[in-house]
Amino acid sequence: MKNNKSTVVLAYSGGLDTSFCIPYLQDQGYIVVAVTVDTGGFTQAELKKIKTKAKQLGVKKHFVIDGKQQLYDQIATYIIKGNILRGGVYPLSVGPERVIQAQEVVKVAQEFKATAVAHGSTGAGNDQVRFETYFQTLAPQLEVIAPIRELSLTRAEEIKYLQSKGFEVDETKHQCSINQGLLGTTIGGQETLDSWSSVPDEAYPAVVPLNDTPQEPVELTVEFKQGLPIKLNGKKLPALKLIAQLSQLGAKHGFGKNVHLGNTILGIKGRVAFEAPAILTLIKAHQELEKLVLTKHQAFWKDHLANVYGDLLHEAQYFDPVMKDIETLIDSSQQVVSGEVKIKLHHGNCQVLGVKSPHSLMNPDVASYGEENHLWTGQEAAGFSKIFGLQSSLAYQVNKQETKS
Amino acid sequence: MKNNKSTVVLAYSGGLDTSFCIPYLQDQGYIVVAVTVDTGGFTQAELKKIKTKAKQLGVKKHFVIDGKQQLYDQIATYIIKGNILRGGVYPLSVGPERVIQAQEVVKVAQEFKATAVAHGSTGAGNDQVRFETYFQTLAPQLEVIAPIRELSLTRAEEIKYLQSKGFEVDETKHQCSINQGLLGTTIGGQETLDSWSSVPDEAYPAVVPLNDTPQEPVELTVEFKQGLPIKLNGKKLPALKLIAQLSQLGAKHGFGKNVHLGNTILGIKGRVAFEAPAILTLIKAHQELEKLVLTKHQAFWKDHLANVYGDLLHEAQYFDPVMKDIETLIDSSQQVVSGEVKIKLHHGNCQVLGVKSPHSLMNPDVASYGEENHLWTGQEAAGFSKIFGLQSSLAYQVNKQETKS
Amino acid sequence: MKNNKSTVVLAYSGGLDTSFCIPYLQDQGYIVVAVTVDTGGFTQAELKKIKTKAKQLGVKKHFVIDGKQQLYDQIATYIIKGNILRGGVYPLSVGPERVIQAQEVVKVAQEFKATAVAHGSTGAGNDQVRFETYFQTLAPQLEVIAPIRELSLTRAEEIKYLQSKGFEVDETKHQCSINQGLLGTTIGGQETLDSWSSVPDEAYPAVVPLNDTPQEPVELTVEFKQGLPIKLNGKKLPALKLIAQLSQLGAKHGFGKNVHLGNTILGIKGRVAFEAPAILTLIKAHQELEKLVLTKHQAFWKDHLANVYGDLLHEAQYFDPVMKDIETLIDSSQQVVSGEVKIKLHHGNCQVLGVKSPHSLMNPDVASYGEENHLWTGQEAAGFSKIFGLQSSLAYQVNKQETKS
Amino acid sequence: MKNNKSTVVLAYSGGLDTSFCIPYLQDQGYIVVAVTVDTGGFTQAELKKIKTKAKQLGVKKHFVIDGKQQLYDQIATYIIKGNILRGGVYPLSVGPERVIQAQEVVKVAQEFKATAVAHGSTGAGNDQVRFETYFQTLAPQLEVIAPIRELSLTRAEEIKYLQSKGFEVDETKHQCSINQGLLGTTIGGQETLDSWSSVPDEAYPAVVPLNDTPQEPVELTVEFKQGLPIKLNGKKLPALKLIAQLSQLGAKHGFGKNVHLGNTILGIKGRVAFEAPAILTLIKAHQELEKLVLTKHQAFWKDHLANVYGDLLHEAQYFDPVMKDIETLIDSSQQVVSGEVKIKLHHGNCQVLGVKSPHSLMNPDVASYGEENHLWTGQEAAGFSKIFGLQSSLAYQVNKQETKS
Repeated sequence: MKNNKSTVVLAYSGGLDTSFCIPYLQDQGYIVVAVTVDTGGFTQAELKKIKTKAKQLGVKKHFVIDGKQQLYDQIATYIIKGNILRGGVYPLSVGPERVIQAQEVVKVAQEFKATAVAHGSTGAGNDQVRFETYFQTLAPQLEVIAPIRELSLTRAEEIKYLQSKGFEVDETKHQCSINQGLLGTTIGGQETLDSWSSVPDEAYPAVVPLNDTPQEPVELTVEFKQGLPIKLNGKKLPALKLIAQLSQLGAKHGFGKNVHLGNTILGIKGRVAFEAPAILTLIKAHQELEKLVLTKHQAFWKDHLANVYGDLLHEAQYFDPVMKDIETLIDSSQQVVSGEVKIKLHHGNCQVLGVKSPHSLMNPDVASYGEENHLWTGQEAAGFSKIFGLQSSLAYQVNKQETKS
Repeated sequence: MKNNKSTVVLAYSGGLDTSFCIPYLQDQGYIVVAVTVDTGGFTQAELKKIKTKAKQLGVKKHFVIDGKQQLYDQIATYIIKGNILRGGVYPLSVGPERVIQAQEVVKVAQEFKATAVAHGSTGAGNDQVRFETYFQTLAPQLEVIAPIRELSLTRAEEIKYLQSKGFEVDETKHQCSINQGLLGTTIGGQETLDSWSSVPDEAYPAVVPLNDTPQEPVELTVEFKQGLPIKLNGKKLPALKLIAQLSQLGAKHGFGKNVHLGNTILGIKGRVAFEAPAILTLIKAHQELEKLVLTKHQAFWKDHLANVYGDLLHEAQYFDPVMKDIETLIDSSQQVVSGEVKIKLHHGNCQVLGVKSPHSLMNPDVASYGEENHLWTGQEAAGFSKIFGLQSSLAYQVNKQETKS
Repeated sequence: MKNNKSTVVLAYSGGLDTSFCIPYLQDQGYIVVAVTVDTGGFTQAELKKIKTKAKQLGVKKHFVIDGKQQLYDQIATYIIKGNILRGGVYPLSVGPERVIQAQEVVKVAQEFKATAVAHGSTGAGNDQVRFETYFQTLAPQLEVIAPIRELSLTRAEEIKYLQSKGFEVDETKHQCSINQGLLGTTIGGQETLDSWSSVPDEAYPAVVPLNDTPQEPVELTVEFKQGLPIKLNGKKLPALKLIAQLSQLGAKHGFGKNVHLGNTILGIKGRVAFEAPAILTLIKAHQELEKLVLTKHQAFWKDHLANVYGDLLHEAQYFDPVMKDIETLIDSSQQVVSGEVKIKLHHGNCQVLGVKSPHSLMNPDVASYGEENHLWTGQEAAGFSKIFGLQSSLAYQVNKQETKS
Repeated sequence: MKNNKSTVVLAYSGGLDTSFCIPYLQDQGYIVVAVTVDTGGFTQAELKKIKTKAKQLGVKKHFVIDGKQQLYDQIATYIIKGNILRGGVYPLSVGPERVIQAQEVVKVAQEFKATAVAHGSTGAGNDQVRFETYFQTLAPQLEVIAPIRELSLTRAEEIKYLQSKGFEVDETKHQCSINQGLLGTTIGGQETLDSWSSVPDEAYPAVVPLNDTPQEPVELTVEFKQGLPIKLNGKKLPALKLIAQLSQLGAKHGFGKNVHLGNTILGIKGRVAFEAPAILTLIKAHQELEKLVLTKHQAFWKDHLANVYGDLLHEAQYFDPVMKDIETLIDSSQQVVSGEVKIKLHHGNCQVLGVKSPHSLMNPDVASYGEENHLWTGQEAAGFSKIFGLQSSLAYQVNKQETKS
């Protein structure tokens, strides 16, 4: 119990866990300031509801901060430029949101001269590690409080506590936990808890089941400039709008849902369902454009480093300076990733039909695969073939006795 | 012009280029022995036709060698175990065939005490490098002859030459060049020569256009043992049969076609269309199973090395001893990659619904993502979170002045 | 306080910390069994002294287990084969010992049906993480007790406690902590605590200061078979003897001491001095032999993976299955690493004078750098040069406008 | 034979090979312009001699271009920042010079509207590939002539040709070929042609044999700013001067010579001796400073990428855009690599005694290895240890039956 009231700033989502935290932290003697960072998961109506709820629960002040543009500029751009898909499938939808949320919570904490920050994560998953690493990095002097983890309460106990304080709680048990945001929607629930159960179509809030998708495909073009999308179907659009439109289009055509089975930061496996039509379309398109303009060495190392970037981002290492180092490499490679990509969406498929770029290394004036070309003679190709394979040939000659015996 | 007749062994596909080579090499004074290695691209009828043609063209001897099992055992197994997809899409369908073909051609050359081997590749693409590197490795004493590359003939010139020799030629100009085999069908043609043209549905010989696919999905299970498929829908099948059945199923449901834009060995970009329903289904399934049983360190390094393996295989470095080194690492990782995978094929989509394995690291007795668990306490998780992010936090503290200014 | 006496097995080094643990654990109600694993750091006299001390402190049973051969076979061989030097300098002398010690302690614990194991590490460094990860891996059912960490006692407090129990303690404060073993001696002390202080010659127990080294150099040869040393100066020697002799020779000539500044597992930097003449000589020799027999692809990937192996070994991940995966790759590469290495030791320098091997890729029959050769013609080299640099050249052409502006 | 005289620009070193080229190219009908780029290997007297010789041989114009600062700024800085040592030993002394030389030759060719450029490399080694790749990249429209390679002349034949033209030639056969420059001296000769022969002390032009080195060591300090040396013993010096002074100091104390056995671009092994006291001292110092200020993730990836950079630089890929990408990553990491390094040179040893930096992550206010610290509690360390090793432990539990059987 605190004696003279200090302030705690709480990352507040409006859900049961963080709602519980408000009266609980007040009970501990804190003045509670709540911060809801909108990283793309809320409608205006939902935000209004959250505000009302926070007020009812007695926060001193509640902030709604629009973090969407920040999330895009600071992190999502590197997910696109880096074609970052964890396990080859998941565009890291949740992890980056925690960076932005932690940054905003710390800013408010500094403004209010708070002595603590709080989050509602349990002790089971990744988010506790992310919030705490980021809080500790950005404001090491602040105490970090994680009531849900500390108390190990069940949902029922949280509800009971809130009711005992006189607050109304919507008791419908959600079948699943959903995290919605700019980079997609991540869904955890009964079906994702073991690795064998199929996730039903109904679990995906936006993406239409295959049998309900339009018979006719849609073709669209995305134009990229230095690795980022700037136009959809020839029309210049701000990134957030472009993503919103792609999201709707993809969902309508059944594209962009999947299941991700991967490693949590704590070492156990986790499985989630997710949908992310926009970001997955953009990555597919961007990746194909890169194939046209990057050299093989650029592609190999940029892909490898971007993969590392994704892993470290997942693992709460966003503020390790290696991340800036990798970002500079990615940015350098993107200087030439400008051009147009033609895409077809149809029955859950997103197919890249074609790419073009002023930086194309597939210059028709130059040479085309499978045709005669003007860059070298047959004799030069023979010389190349001979020497290019020389070392493997020598090694084979020298060691074939050994290999045989 | 050779004086006393030496023997040349020709890698013979039955196409125009290698057909041209037979009389041409005879004109150069060689006795020609032709070898057709079946790596999965021929029906029995086609093989018979090729045999007849070779005889008509006057080869001393023509061999048809069934290389399918060899191709599977020696290389395709590593494409599956390694989830090897060039550019994230292409299962390296062509390159591995050249290894098997070169091996068989060299065997015959040794048997016939030939002084030379020959292939029909042009000077434009990858195959010349592959054939020559492999010939030079396996039998450095043999001369390598590449008539098509040396003469830089057009198709018309080849036809004229053959007709001048009294041979009949089917003059229909093929719209595209097709390489069919165990690992899929690779298609080059007018539409693949520039990067913007869409490849029409008709270009794909087997995979059904989306609008013609069945309304009802099909669900199937594949069982893997140590990284390789052994059962389809619960029924034990030899690998070649399993692949054939998967191929048919995938094609029927419109799955497994794509376009691959990548780097040729000679440094220019190339673009091909391909279809490979079976191998792509197997890789998807295998990959998901791995996610359940490999540790994050295993997955990271095995994926990275398998990627390198694919690049080197593409680049004609199959006999570099590093390939065996990487194979041992891959094999070591596959000890636990046994289990079942449930898959749904529908309208061109191949979705993994679930995986299970006796080696699962997602043991429900242990811990489940998003739920309370018994492996650690909240306090332990707090300690972990604090220390796991420590270095990035320290670096941020020490350098934030610098970063700001 | 335990009610009915359970047994704890203590990893016992004979030092103050682990000596404190014996009566302390007894006070907690445990029967204490002590295990001293000799990983190369003890003379027979020292082991006898440790045994006496353990008995005096009242252990139920004390085991001295010779772990040297096990340490060599299981881990040191991979440090040599992998040329593993952390930070380019430190042959990981300490970490591998903890694996062997944990294994032996767990074996005794199983034999004695102990309910707990204990170690004397503090909360500051790497060893706690190693002991606990390994105990948890090998015997997750055993409780792990770390009295020194739990109590955060000072040296003086430990002495006082032991004296209060009636035990004699040698109160001379050691200037530094020393860990001696097969893989070298690691020294921590006042001078290593900050990064600027020079470590004086006297800190190194065995390696002779440069000014006291012999005026005359010594030349020696080491023969390797499949990556491991089997002969010294032409004489077959068991590995442990060969290491002992090399150790003496190196130390006499002033070779093999250095300072290592690196990252601890917990994220802070640490600095130690160390000497390891034998293992450093072997790695230098082995590395040069590899340069003669491995292809560039083999060397690149094997080095990279071995580096990862070293990092994971340092970070207590020895039992992650990726380690076996990497070991198989390393072993595969070592098939040809057989041959002789000629070395000169002089005034602290260890210079490799020459290498030879039946697997040499520098076959004088073949080609020699800087001389005319018979493997290719000038024309072939010209063809190779043209195509080998083609992609970088094309990329430069296509993008030079961009790069300029 | 050219009809109307076009101009060829020759990279001219003043040696026999390039001297031969002048009259030879004139015989081919060219006007010859010779360019000598000083990359650190010439005294003023030598440059004067070269100028005289070129004039005597009849060049239309001869340029001496000082390329030292350019070599430092453009490439040597990345060798230092990247700690780039091929095979762990060789600071790539020769390859970078070819970049600068090619650039300057092309500039002159453009100025003179030349139709061709020429170099004197043989067909055996790396330099032909470098010159041709760089010429082809910078000026693809220029013909490249390599007379020595084309004619495969012996030394004696070249001398005879020159004498037949009336030129005097110094016929003393050099025991070895020497390439001297800013980044060190590379020596090829009889002793380096096989891998077993020791290279005698006399082969090294500057570095003093161990027995002739001073009895007393010298201590010095180098100060770095953002990865580059700016002060020697507290005195601000331009880089070229600092390198010259370090070179002299190192050579006097017997430091900085070695033998490098590695892979040539063409696939065969090559062995050279070299000395590079200055650059090796700088890399040692820089590397230790980095250990103090970079996080483990930064160090791992930066080292790995710098290694790749070195390999590509060696392999004539300097103009591949991946090189700029890697440079940006290296530069980003160097923001904090500022501080002082204390070094001792003695009897061929270069020992780093200490490092300090305002960016030190080994802050004594924070925590010191082996001592109690204030960053975490024992309990937190226990939690960390438990979870950090969890996945390897789970994998071991799940699979130990398998592993055993």
